[in-house]
Amino acid sequence: AARSLATHALSIFGDHQDVYAVRGTGFAMLAESSVQQVMDLTGVAHLSAIKGSVPFINFFDGFRTSHELQKVDVIDTDKLKNLIDVRELSKFRDRAMNPNKPTIRGTAQNEDIYFQSTEVRNKYYDAVPDIVNSYMAEINKITGRNYMPFNYYGDPSATKVIVAMGSVCETVRETVNYLFKEKHEPVGLIEVHLFRPFSTKYLLDILPESVKTIAVLDRTKEAGSNGEPLYLDIVSALKDKDIRVVGGRYGLSSKNTTPAMIKGIFDFLDTREVHSNFTVGINDDVTNLSIKYNEDFKLPNNNVEFLIYGYGSDGMVSASKDIMKITGTYTNAYVQGYFQYDSKKSGGITISHLRFGKNVISSTYYVQSASIIVCTKDSYLKRLKMLDRIKEKGVFILNTNLDSDEVLALMTNHDKEILKTRNVKMFILDASKIARDSGIPGKISTIMETIIFKLGKIVDFNFAVNKIKDNLSVKFANKGGSVIENNIKAIDNSLECLIPVKVPNVDFDKEIEGKKSLFEVIDSMEGDSLPVSSFLTNPNGEAEAGTSKLDKRDSSDVAPSYCAENCLGCNMCSLVCPHGVIRPFLLDEKEEIDAPDSVKRNLLNSNIKDKDYKFTIGVSIPDCTGCGLCVEACTGKKGVKALTLKTKSELRDDNKDEEYKYLFNDVKEKKNVMPTSTIKGSQFVKPKFEFSGACAGCGETPYLKLLTQLFGDRMVVANATGCSSIYGASTPSMPYSIPWANSLFEDN
Amino acid sequence: AARSLATHALSIFGDHQDVYAVRGTGFAMLAESSVQQVMDLTGVAHLSAIKGSVPFINFFDGFRTSHELQKVDVIDTDKLKNLIDVRELSKFRDRAMNPNKPTIRGTAQNEDIYFQSTEVRNKYYDAVPDIVNSYMAEINKITGRNYMPFNYYGDPSATKVIVAMGSVCETVRETVNYLFKEKHEPVGLIEVHLFRPFSTKYLLDILPESVKTIAVLDRTKEAGSNGEPLYLDIVSALKDKDIRVVGGRYGLSSKNTTPAMIKGIFDFLDTREVHSNFTVGINDDVTNLSIKYNEDFKLPNNNVEFLIYGYGSDGMVSASKDIMKITGTYTNAYVQGYFQYDSKKSGGITISHLRFGKNVISSTYYVQSASIIVCTKDSYLKRLKMLDRIKEKGVFILNTNLDSDEVLALMTNHDKEILKTRNVKMFILDASKIARDSGIPGKISTIMETIIFKLGKIVDFNFAVNKIKDNLSVKFANKGGSVIENNIKAIDNSLECLIPVKVPNVDFDKEIEGKKSLFEVIDSMEGDSLPVSSFLTNPNGEAEAGTSKLDKRDSSDVAPSYCAENCLGCNMCSLVCPHGVIRPFLLDEKEEIDAPDSVKRNLLNSNIKDKDYKFTIGVSIPDCTGCGLCVEACTGKKGVKALTLKTKSELRDDNKDEEYKYLFNDVKEKKNVMPTSTIKGSQFVKPKFEFSGACAGCGETPYLKLLTQLFGDRMVVANATGCSSIYGASTPSMPYSIPWANSLFEDN
Repeated sequence: AARSLATHALSIFGDHQDVYAVRGTGFAMLAESSVQQVMDLTGVAHLSAIKGSVPFINFFDGFRTSHELQKVDVIDTDKLKNLIDVRELSKFRDRAMNPNKPTIRGTAQNEDIYFQSTEVRNKYYDAVPDIVNSYMAEINKITGRNYMPFNYYGDPSATKVIVAMGSVCETVRETVNYLFKEKHEPVGLIEVHLFRPFSTKYLLDILPESVKTIAVLDRTKEAGSNGEPLYLDIVSALKDKDIRVVGGRYGLSSKNTTPAMIKGIFDFLDTREVHSNFTVGINDDVTNLSIKYNEDFKLPNNNVEFLIYGYGSDGMVSASKDIMKITGTYTNAYVQGYFQYDSKKSGGITISHLRFGKNVISSTYYVQSASIIVCTKDSYLKRLKMLDRIKEKGVFILNTNLDSDEVLALMTNHDKEILKTRNVKMFILDASKIARDSGIPGKISTIMETIIFKLGKIVDFNFAVNKIKDNLSVKFANKGGSVIENNIKAIDNSLECLIPVKVPNVDFDKEIEGKKSLFEVIDSMEGDSLPVSSFLTNPNGEAEAGTSKLDKRDSSDVAPSYCAENCLGCNMCSLVCPHGVIRPFLLDEKEEIDAPDSVKRNLLNSNIKDKDYKFTIGVSIPDCTGCGLCVEACTGKKGVKALTLKTKSELRDDNKDEEYKYLFNDVKEKKNVMPTSTIKGSQFVKPKFEFSGACAGCGETPYLKLLTQLFGDRMVVANATGCSSIYGASTPSMPYSIPWANSLFEDN
Repeated sequence: AARSLATHALSIFGDHQDVYAVRGTGFAMLAESSVQQVMDLTGVAHLSAIKGSVPFINFFDGFRTSHELQKVDVIDTDKLKNLIDVRELSKFRDRAMNPNKPTIRGTAQNEDIYFQSTEVRNKYYDAVPDIVNSYMAEINKITGRNYMPFNYYGDPSATKVIVAMGSVCETVRETVNYLFKEKHEPVGLIEVHLFRPFSTKYLLDILPESVKTIAVLDRTKEAGSNGEPLYLDIVSALKDKDIRVVGGRYGLSSKNTTPAMIKGIFDFLDTREVHSNFTVGINDDVTNLSIKYNEDFKLPNNNVEFLIYGYGSDGMVSASKDIMKITGTYTNAYVQGYFQYDSKKSGGITISHLRFGKNVISSTYYVQSASIIVCTKDSYLKRLKMLDRIKEKGVFILNTNLDSDEVLALMTNHDKEILKTRNVKMFILDASKIARDSGIPGKISTIMETIIFKLGKIVDFNFAVNKIKDNLSVKFANKGGSVIENNIKAIDNSLECLIPVKVPNVDFDKEIEGKKSLFEVIDSMEGDSLPVSSFLTNPNGEAEAGTSKLDKRDSSDVAPSYCAENCLGCNMCSLVCPHGVIRPFLLDEKEEIDAPDSVKRNLLNSNIKDKDYKFTIGVSIPDCTGCGLCVEACTGKKGVKALTLKTKSELRDDNKDEEYKYLFNDVKEKKNVMPTSTIKGSQFVKPKFEFSGACAGCGETPYLKLLTQLFGDRMVVANATGCSSIYGASTPSMPYSIPWANSLFEDN
């Protein structure tokens, strides 16, 4: 699975940088554009490696292909087995290192023979394209498809052709089919399968004579080069032809690449401004290399599409996979699932893009027009523009413990206007409550799955519910019987709880949006809209420190509520909190006066000598992950704990939002009030790991948090891998700590 | 220093593979073609990196440039200092990581912003060529030279041009100068300095309009590519021009590249067979990609050239450097030294190529026509064709302890015919004896240096001798006074010992050479003559095991001689030998009868119970490095040692050559004769490290040798880095041992 390399930033997403980086090694390289192709062609790589005695890299796009769920035809492995050249396989095995027939490998060679020894391998590379082609022909016999080292699609008399490799070919093919068949445009696609050894012969075999202009698309950027790798190959292969070849970049690190962009490229080839080194899919307002395209262009589409907004660990990705599995397995329908998530893992936003169709689905881009949009977290209502992609008469399902009026109050006018103008049906349900009531607290995914089947109408609802129930007995086979029963109860309870929400038929004023910070744009999932100039100030990937305090994931339904009356002031709750969510505060006289009334009523006299501080415990509610460790650790008084978990609406009712904002923002840290050699004393130190932010839960933070409290100013945390719990940015990783070095981050 | 990467074999030599392998990283890359250019342009890389905020790789050819000794103009560093952009330097420093102003770096980015953040760096890369060019202009002001991102040399109306990078440019330039100025051929050279960012603009600036054909030379091979990296760049840069561009490979891993080859390329461009993907400098009789050229073509040459054949650690490389230093420092002459050696280090063949001239010497290839050839080891007479490159009336100086007649008997007819037909004066001297007599045993280099100055006539002899003597006092300043005195004595003694050798004026029959094995060809330094087909059987770089036994370095003048009379049979000599040069042998009755008489007279009764074996110690004379450890370790009887070091001619007189051949080849190993838990018993086991072969003396072999004796068949030596002391091939390296694994190499 081809991925980005870490340059100005680490990125886990799809890109051809890693594959290109090793193109000089002498490995043969075979590329696939779809999940079906991975099934069909991976065998070709293995078979050709054996027959041709050349090592292969078999690759496809990271995430877009590697993580896509698709319905595919499976090749019978016996048929593949018959294709193995057993004589060459046996020679291959004979070449294995074997102490019983020793030879020397990895000798050192000098100038006298190194060059000749290198050139002796030419004939192996010369033979590979024919070997690959002949194995593809065998695969074609089995599958009925038509693979070649290069495949051509589109107008046989095309004048404009795109050359590309990987998942984008599926999107280009869709677009070419439409433009050629529906609009009679002279366009085509050359899909590269055999990238190395590069075979000009096979390229010329399929290139229509009519071609005048070629755009080569590379999913990479090699800074300082004269063009990206595939572009350079095509230019040199066609250097004796009278064809204009331009090269461009698209889709770096899984950037969504749409038919609109592909059409934009074909249109660009007709303009007078056509140039090489273009980009598509971004707005390059610095070097002006990006091409313009009509973002509203969409291909006609008969598929049914769903969009499901969840958060990491809420089970909605699994539920989506279940929906596709049931639909794909028991009907003739084709299904496709792609799961968009950031690298924050547990607690981050997940968006499941589901497609269902009568034909093979080859749209390798995000869902554009959903008949159902689901959201499992009401805090997204304010944070994300979820309804932009909903269809006319679509359905919007929201999991919330709020009532209709509260939800409408929370929604943006932007979304309410969409509900109204597109005639969207909206439903809310309190899946968490159903789960609790059914004895499976926190497990909302089966309930949501049932609702989606009910409202999505992709398969017979009763059939689907029975399948979900059947699956439960497999899924929970090794758990107690009541788990299955409780889940079944939840399923049966779910439909009754659906509450329709009626949008008042009034005009909603468009919100006037203030200028958002870079962080806020990214946080609201609108980073795609940022032009290149947004990054001018930090071209080397530097980012502002301390943004984790802005990254409120609000991932828990519950958080601890503090009652001073039962508190011993031991600070154990603060010690055990994996982040800095629950912490003791010491208020001086002025701070006590300024405090919200509810805080004033919830204070203890501190035991700090010589100081007249008041003591209380604050909880940063939106950072709380609801783990309950603090409640566990609380000893309380006379058997009554000072901390209890409450739902967020209860906490809101208790004015706790106002409390935490005051305590965490306005109350100053009191330094050196107690020795940090005691548990209690250490917890009055503001930890450097203050906000859970983007924490992936690697387990290091509680330890490091305590270290920052014990060693304070004498500690440097070398944030080698970018853990955002320290400084906050996109993604966490394991940080390395170096106590006793001179430091610090007082401004954090 | 750019070098080869290990593929089918490791190679330490010069090549652009490593540089090309990182061309996708975004580093700017600046190339130099000569030692003077390294002086002039390295500063440009530093200055541009600071001003342009882009990291630089500054590179030049490994060995050919990095190890060449040249007389260069040195730039005053104060002048460089004035060129630093202090504002940018200060910004650069401000960007350093600093805990007092923390920022986050190495964040993770997702698909939303990674692409834009990548493109924001374009403007930095766009600026680099102008920055580099303007710094080159500053350097040009200081040096009076004319550096540009691309430099053009040759006919302003050239039709045929070579594009290249690195040391070959010097040779191309020499050849172009000759062909254009003397022969009026329309040829030129484009020398690449700024390889990344690749600037088409600067390339077009210097490319003559008249050019019709271009050959791009790459010192690399990227198997499976459509052409090598520089070729692909040039093709894409010139795609809109009506110029035929072909690409070729030369000089992989420091393969010597001559003016004849360069002329061959220009001639090739005129032929109808002209094709891309050619090679030059080898005979590719497999894929027929190599081009033909007239090997006898040489450029007119006014330089004086010396060739000095020595062996690693004989001091001749240092002596050569001394000769050039004295000549270069105290005269107006330009000097150039290049030292050709394999990777065997101590004991391997070294060839010093020295040039002296009135003008700057830019011949980046081996000496072709030497007025003096020196050889410090008479065993080379049979092994190497040393005299092929001697000039008419040249001088051949041989260090040997043989007399004239013996030397002539040892010489090949091939070399004797050259002595005769080219009127070569030949001298012999016993430098080792002079060294011994002067109290500096084993140190022949100062003596040889004196002789070379005497016969070479490049500077006034008396002046030179005084300088050598002056240098001695610096060189041995911290040694005792007698070292200097003894060296001076050796210098003064050296001239008297020169003995002229007169070749009889008869016709020498040409030797009929039998078919040599691959090993023998390489061993006689004729590997360059091997065609590609020689490597067909092992395209993956496998080599025959056990060739170290053929690799007799014969590096010592002395070896131990064994006298049974004084021997206790303790086997300590064998234990301490770093290789398996000295070993105990047990002879059964038949072996005793078959033994040479001298062996029969030198046997002990063995103490092995139940067996009637005879015991003796054998010495593999040509493998002995003369370290003397065995003699040290020998206890002997009544104060008389059983081992004494003798010269090889004494050993020959004692029939010791016949002895060792019999003992090491014909006497069978007697297994399980004594427990290996005793020192004595362990030494009857034939060690796996039997021959010193190509040992570099890493120090591991004595330890590993003993392990193989102790653990025998239960030991695998994973020869991960190709130590040829195990299996024998070209080069040694540290082997890794894994005792107790199942194994073995019985045939070794």
